[in-house]
Amino acid sequence: MGSNKHLSTGSKVPSLEQGKLRLYSMRFCPYAQRVHLVLDSKKIPYDVVYVNLTQKPEWLQEKSPLGKVPCIEFENGDTLYESLIISEYLDEAYPESTLFPKDPLAKAKDKLLIERFNEVITTIYKIYFGKGDDRDLFNEVLKGLDIFDKELAKRGTPFFNGSQPGMLDLMIWPWCERADILKLIRGEHFVIPKDRYHRLLEWKVAMKEDAGVKRSFLDAETHAKYMKSRIAGIAQYDF
Amino acid sequence: MGSNKHLSTGSKVPSLEQGKLRLYSMRFCPYAQRVHLVLDSKKIPYDVVYVNLTQKPEWLQEKSPLGKVPCIEFENGDTLYESLIISEYLDEAYPESTLFPKDPLAKAKDKLLIERFNEVITTIYKIYFGKGDDRDLFNEVLKGLDIFDKELAKRGTPFFNGSQPGMLDLMIWPWCERADILKLIRGEHFVIPKDRYHRLLEWKVAMKEDAGVKRSFLDAETHAKYMKSRIAGIAQYDF
Repeated sequence: MGSNKHLSTGSKVPSLEQGKLRLYSMRFCPYAQRVHLVLDSKKIPYDVVYVNLTQKPEWLQEKSPLGKVPCIEFENGDTLYESLIISEYLDEAYPESTLFPKDPLAKAKDKLLIERFNEVITTIYKIYFGKGDDRDLFNEVLKGLDIFDKELAKRGTPFFNGSQPGMLDLMIWPWCERADILKLIRGEHFVIPKDRYHRLLEWKVAMKEDAGVKRSFLDAETHAKYMKSRIAGIAQYDF
Repeated sequence: MGSNKHLSTGSKVPSLEQGKLRLYSMRFCPYAQRVHLVLDSKKIPYDVVYVNLTQKPEWLQEKSPLGKVPCIEFENGDTLYESLIISEYLDEAYPESTLFPKDPLAKAKDKLLIERFNEVITTIYKIYFGKGDDRDLFNEVLKGLDIFDKELAKRGTPFFNGSQPGMLDLMIWPWCERADILKLIRGEHFVIPKDRYHRLLEWKVAMKEDAGVKRSFLDAETHAKYMKSRIAGIAQYDF
């Protein structure tokens, strides 16, 4: 069974439960949250083992060769890592309710947008860790978000995937859930302007109401508390 | 129709041919070659427009927003970019002979290996451009290749995909085709040792014999000539 505490060096790995997938996660890791979102949206039964990524358990590397989360484990001990690869695997292995569009071209275009969101992610981390001029970097983040606001306008649906969240919605969500961290740790200048990102902010409200999204949701204050500890060089996993 | 010359600034884009995909490519780009390999292996009809990546045509950005190749264009003017996204799209849109394993877990594991090959690629470029100790970096490349040699042993088949090349084979091939560039520009120390990489070198011989692989094949001397020009800062696309 999973426990809420992040396991660290010297810990024993909890035994696997029959009939369930195991997810190795870290409560504040946006990449791990991607997999929570897919599992929760597709209602796949799983248990969670949270991992301390500063003082890693010795057994982690056996499961995840690069020592990273997310990592999923099957009943037979087989594992998979990398958030996008796990997410696509789950969508194919549990095809009752698919998160990607069925049309290969529409699917490929959603993958391109997930890829382009990486630019936004990289720039946000540069702001957190003070690697460049804050205001210039925030303008870059906003330019990156323009692509997504325009795309929602073009699609004319509440979610990128239509009337409910799909893979593109879920893969970019963790950083959108965390958007207010910047305001909380850097001040009011770092707020996404409502008039310019009308559709994206409406999408954010709709995402927060989704049952699958709610399950892994944490508020901005909690995310900011973790991020402050990480920026200070003493990441706090349990509080 | 495609032409063999790399088109540059001031060029006009050739008109699209009915009933064919268009591939924007650069003759020596390993990422673009990935898409050639998929198209050639699946026998999908396409024409090629080669692009000068130093003096880019003005029209490139309309097709490929980041100004990169590979990029494919459809009859209706729609485009896709990013080598892995295009390759997976082609595999799904032309499902007669699929390149990925049908089993979602086997497919995900091949994707992980394609992802892990990125470490090898990054290290090879560090050697080309002199970013670190050559011998240390080459040892890192070899360590990366160990994973692939062991995997072939585990699978016990001539190709990663079995009796013929599949997606994993094709996605790592361009850098294997170019492996001897290092020997040609840096000397005999940079040769992959035959005894340690017995299976991988047998795989290389088998790959070179494959009809789909042959279509985009260039010999190591030609690749080295391009790479030398690029390292000198005056990339030569046509010779």
